[in-house]
Amino acid sequence: MHVGPSIIETEVLLAGVKENVGFTSPEFIEAMGNALRGVRKVMGADNTYQPFIIPGSGTAAMESVTSLLRKGDRVLVVSNGVFGDRWEAILRKYPLEVKVLRAGPGDAVSEAEILREMEGGKYKMITMTHVETSTGVKMPVGEVSRKLRDHVEIITVDGVASVGGEEVKAREWGVDIYLTASQKALGCPPGAGILVLSERATNTISTQSVAGYFLDLGNWLQVMRNMEEGRGGYFATLPVHLVFSISKALEMIEEEGLENRFRRHALVAGTIRAGVEGMGKRVVAKRGLYSNTVTGVEVERVNPSDVLKTTISGGLELAPGVHPALKYFRIGHMGWINPNDAISTIAVVERTLSKLGEPVKVGEGLRSAQEFLSANS
Amino acid sequence: MHVGPSIIETEVLLAGVKENVGFTSPEFIEAMGNALRGVRKVMGADNTYQPFIIPGSGTAAMESVTSLLRKGDRVLVVSNGVFGDRWEAILRKYPLEVKVLRAGPGDAVSEAEILREMEGGKYKMITMTHVETSTGVKMPVGEVSRKLRDHVEIITVDGVASVGGEEVKAREWGVDIYLTASQKALGCPPGAGILVLSERATNTISTQSVAGYFLDLGNWLQVMRNMEEGRGGYFATLPVHLVFSISKALEMIEEEGLENRFRRHALVAGTIRAGVEGMGKRVVAKRGLYSNTVTGVEVERVNPSDVLKTTISGGLELAPGVHPALKYFRIGHMGWINPNDAISTIAVVERTLSKLGEPVKVGEGLRSAQEFLSANS
Amino acid sequence: MHVGPSIIETEVLLAGVKENVGFTSPEFIEAMGNALRGVRKVMGADNTYQPFIIPGSGTAAMESVTSLLRKGDRVLVVSNGVFGDRWEAILRKYPLEVKVLRAGPGDAVSEAEILREMEGGKYKMITMTHVETSTGVKMPVGEVSRKLRDHVEIITVDGVASVGGEEVKAREWGVDIYLTASQKALGCPPGAGILVLSERATNTISTQSVAGYFLDLGNWLQVMRNMEEGRGGYFATLPVHLVFSISKALEMIEEEGLENRFRRHALVAGTIRAGVEGMGKRVVAKRGLYSNTVTGVEVERVNPSDVLKTTISGGLELAPGVHPALKYFRIGHMGWINPNDAISTIAVVERTLSKLGEPVKVGEGLRSAQEFLSANS
Amino acid sequence: MHVGPSIIETEVLLAGVKENVGFTSPEFIEAMGNALRGVRKVMGADNTYQPFIIPGSGTAAMESVTSLLRKGDRVLVVSNGVFGDRWEAILRKYPLEVKVLRAGPGDAVSEAEILREMEGGKYKMITMTHVETSTGVKMPVGEVSRKLRDHVEIITVDGVASVGGEEVKAREWGVDIYLTASQKALGCPPGAGILVLSERATNTISTQSVAGYFLDLGNWLQVMRNMEEGRGGYFATLPVHLVFSISKALEMIEEEGLENRFRRHALVAGTIRAGVEGMGKRVVAKRGLYSNTVTGVEVERVNPSDVLKTTISGGLELAPGVHPALKYFRIGHMGWINPNDAISTIAVVERTLSKLGEPVKVGEGLRSAQEFLSANS
Repeated sequence: MHVGPSIIETEVLLAGVKENVGFTSPEFIEAMGNALRGVRKVMGADNTYQPFIIPGSGTAAMESVTSLLRKGDRVLVVSNGVFGDRWEAILRKYPLEVKVLRAGPGDAVSEAEILREMEGGKYKMITMTHVETSTGVKMPVGEVSRKLRDHVEIITVDGVASVGGEEVKAREWGVDIYLTASQKALGCPPGAGILVLSERATNTISTQSVAGYFLDLGNWLQVMRNMEEGRGGYFATLPVHLVFSISKALEMIEEEGLENRFRRHALVAGTIRAGVEGMGKRVVAKRGLYSNTVTGVEVERVNPSDVLKTTISGGLELAPGVHPALKYFRIGHMGWINPNDAISTIAVVERTLSKLGEPVKVGEGLRSAQEFLSANS
Repeated sequence: MHVGPSIIETEVLLAGVKENVGFTSPEFIEAMGNALRGVRKVMGADNTYQPFIIPGSGTAAMESVTSLLRKGDRVLVVSNGVFGDRWEAILRKYPLEVKVLRAGPGDAVSEAEILREMEGGKYKMITMTHVETSTGVKMPVGEVSRKLRDHVEIITVDGVASVGGEEVKAREWGVDIYLTASQKALGCPPGAGILVLSERATNTISTQSVAGYFLDLGNWLQVMRNMEEGRGGYFATLPVHLVFSISKALEMIEEEGLENRFRRHALVAGTIRAGVEGMGKRVVAKRGLYSNTVTGVEVERVNPSDVLKTTISGGLELAPGVHPALKYFRIGHMGWINPNDAISTIAVVERTLSKLGEPVKVGEGLRSAQEFLSANS
Repeated sequence: MHVGPSIIETEVLLAGVKENVGFTSPEFIEAMGNALRGVRKVMGADNTYQPFIIPGSGTAAMESVTSLLRKGDRVLVVSNGVFGDRWEAILRKYPLEVKVLRAGPGDAVSEAEILREMEGGKYKMITMTHVETSTGVKMPVGEVSRKLRDHVEIITVDGVASVGGEEVKAREWGVDIYLTASQKALGCPPGAGILVLSERATNTISTQSVAGYFLDLGNWLQVMRNMEEGRGGYFATLPVHLVFSISKALEMIEEEGLENRFRRHALVAGTIRAGVEGMGKRVVAKRGLYSNTVTGVEVERVNPSDVLKTTISGGLELAPGVHPALKYFRIGHMGWINPNDAISTIAVVERTLSKLGEPVKVGEGLRSAQEFLSANS
Repeated sequence: MHVGPSIIETEVLLAGVKENVGFTSPEFIEAMGNALRGVRKVMGADNTYQPFIIPGSGTAAMESVTSLLRKGDRVLVVSNGVFGDRWEAILRKYPLEVKVLRAGPGDAVSEAEILREMEGGKYKMITMTHVETSTGVKMPVGEVSRKLRDHVEIITVDGVASVGGEEVKAREWGVDIYLTASQKALGCPPGAGILVLSERATNTISTQSVAGYFLDLGNWLQVMRNMEEGRGGYFATLPVHLVFSISKALEMIEEEGLENRFRRHALVAGTIRAGVEGMGKRVVAKRGLYSNTVTGVEVERVNPSDVLKTTISGGLELAPGVHPALKYFRIGHMGWINPNDAISTIAVVERTLSKLGEPVKVGEGLRSAQEFLSANS
């Protein structure tokens, strides 16, 4: 129940057990093509979108958007926490003009504030974070994107903590760049940044951009196209084995059905929130900003890092809180999790908090979680 | 017998099959620490060197050396082929002064030429390629480094196609940055760039460097130190599962013994060259520049891409030649290969070339390879 | 939470992934030797006992005791349920005199009754079932064995559902044959019968026995001895890959420590019973006869097979009741199970029974289980 | 290149990596059904034949034919070596009348001799060995069976070393019981005996038979039928994980195509024989009795066990000769072997024999093998 890498199906892991597959083998090219096509689906993109799977991580995918930016371009960063701030840290490394809107802890920057800034701004790009991993806050990127469509050239959404667990409709919402990483709600090992780019975004990639070399999407574009067409290609070595896992995971996601998958994530998230509130604790994200994938739990007395140490010895790996203004820990519930995981997580959290001296109603969290499940499944 | 990913032991792959390990788990931190310590050994580095394992690839590791370079720094690139030229392509993306020395096909830039250029140069960094994957040429980086030591601040060696298969003595040779990738002679899946930095190199990392964000070693430094000390750390998500495989592979390398491992690679390489020459074909690398890990095979009549297509249907994946001035294909022999692989490779190559109309002495390649093995094992 | 095969650690499964290991390979012989030595430990046997691992199952191990029996020998079968009755079914296939003592459902034949029968009996062998899988009843085989020691030549205990989850002290209790199967509390895949034989039992194996060929322990004896001494041996092909898994599992059991392992099983079993009783249902085994490994749950209204069908679609595989006199289903809790599994099992059972119309107090089972865990861990 | 377990595809092994599958799970029942149907195909049986997969080994499958035999029944054993003799050892454990016809080393009992014995015999059953693993001799069981059809009730063929590598036509040849084991030419781990029984054979199974309990096919019959119909069933625990591997292997066999598979085995076997004879050594089986799956190699001077010890340290596991009248070792070439394996086997054998002082023409074996491959592929 970590925020990433999440629980991974053995089947997904075993798909990557290949002793002897080079990056020119037909078997790999097929897997890569399938993975790219699967990425489009899980992102709610259509064939006008170009998918990318590159070695690295979510941060690498974020930085790769510099392939579309030129010296002096203006970028508006909407930050609801640590991973919103990361956009700022990345972009300030380049000769760009960066403006940041920031939300309070557990909150999201409002649509109104964004629109206000946008109107005066002449921004080339806006970046938003669908689910802010540091707090579990989900912002309504779909609605905001629709409103922004005419005010900015490139709308970029960081879906690292959402894609695969939340509804994502890149095409319908008019998002130009939707990006994620392999290890979150897609339920794969870490090691790849994953993006889809709209036609406009793809055409904006430029050799005149501020990007470096490895993360310049211009270098990867032809490789991705070749792979999808069943031909080989090389720029830098792709994470061959991981791609087999990604291809398998996307196949399993399709078998499950995206709607079912989102419903399952919502059920687990709801169970966890019911349990947390049932035992008398507060969820970090404000009501209306809950996500399907991450829940922050505020504590009063105990040291959150003690909670983590104790639960890990009880076989449960949670994640530390990382927002400096709050005292909390995080429960990740992404990938191949199910209601049983939610129940046993609540059980361990309840016992741990109680043992460490935090005021909790032992048994009540579990009972609330169970009632939520009974009513909703 | 591809140039990468190479043949991988199932044991190495299975070490990465972990359903539920986050990047803060003690199990992962231990594996990461082991891997970092193992990297030092296989690079011939000691504790004054700082090891790094970062998500990405060999190219990512190459680009990360920008973490040491500032605007206007002068870099000398010694290029013996495609991967030497890659240094130029990377470095020219940054505000640096780059000078390139280039060798002819199958050849290496001479020590004399390098020293001559260096003397007048005031270079901050020199980059060399230990084994040039595109041709199989190995240059004597150890001897050259010793001579250069007082003429340049940072000596960087690309050991992507050598580390794990050739003797590497970073410390003894006075190399400041030795880098490689997981998928070559270390015999792991691709997905990580791997480096060791001398104390001087580590101290040269600067927040004032030209580097971007993800590939800025300054951002990774504390994480690597923490991991080796058994504490967690986070900058961007590490390829957790791959790290377990790298740790396992380095453990197996230590069990085998570095000397035994180099000897095995030399035996396989010698068998392959004996086979190639026995069947009447020429090796691309000039005598004296042979590597343990890659052999280029020149052909006269046949189209090298037809050779690759035919051998792959015979269960053997070779690599295309990529040097524009030559007509050839490449045999990779890195990682967990053994003499049996060499023999069956020669058998398939012999039959394939013969079938496609290339002049070869069928059976003679095999006989020469077998004689070489009989005499040397 | 099935009664077998139980939940298996991926590590145990992966230990058996070997592409190319014959039964004469040193690697296999070493694994087999380790497995045999590990079997002794988990059985509470010492070096005077001879361990056996044979292809087949628990039933095969049971039938192999015919290797010690000759035409006309008298055997007393103590049956507490279906697997006690199995002894009768097996032995009646052979020219032996078989007498059966039977217990009521949920009960065990008493020590007094056994002693009474024994005194008059002149029995060559007695068979007892440590934990009767069909009901979850555990009988005090240790105490009974000590009392019987002078009244019978060979004391045989079926530990199929106990070894690895309950304390077993073959030597201390004076048991001559303790047998089990790989797939139960040892946490391995099925496919092997496992036994230890006391010196007396080993010496009683006879070519004059009533046994057939494949299950004649006399044919396997030398193979087992050879393997333990690091030499090869062959009678019929051993389940090579499974043996690697067994060896790994026994290694992990030793790392956990037998005491810790029994305590963990007891904790899980206690949690499950607390949950079952907390939701208002009855446990099949009588108080005092509870086992660490199997719990039968009596139901009033619902059809047990409907329970199984519903829970399996909720990701929980339970086992049907098999004792004809009772209406119940079974929860297996053997191998690598932990308190989280107990909690989520109770949660699913509670919801399922409630949904199917069985009178249960939803939430109360969970609360009782949680309280038990809080108090005992 | 052992005679069993043979080289196994990782994919087949990984199919058995299931952490949590009980024998009542729909997933297992489906795999078992697929495996049973696949067994029919690879045996050349149709729906009138009843397939069985039972825990154990080839020897267990052999002994299970006692389920058809009653006290005093006459059985003719046709023995071409050690595994022919095994029939005698098994059957003599039961109250049956057993007569044995024996062939000389490297030879097979002739059709004429069998017919002669049969005519006078009033035999209930005849047993033949398709490929005698101890010598590599293949006898023409198809032709013989056709001739015998009216002279004997039950024709039993031991196909342990043939099924999956040689053409088998149970139905067309009129064989009543064709049996094998999982670990040979089916390319799976060991642990199961596999049989098909004609309608007549199935109807001959009797509760009055001489069989014991575990190996009484009468106990397994309903389980097999249930499984194929998608319903669960239990007699003794099936090797659940192995069944997933068997199902996968049979699926891969079907993808390859039986004809292609036999052709591949024949190509590999031909290459090995060409290599053996090219280096100046003799094949044990007489001309006309060659098998696709096992080749015995006669030596003059060296000790065969020294050959095995030397080749295993060279990464090649061969099998000892077991026929007392001959000085030889065996090469198994079953399962997922390919011509590359044949070539490297010949290379190792050639070098090993030469090093140990056996007269061989080094390089000539390889050349002959290569020429055979060139001419035949």
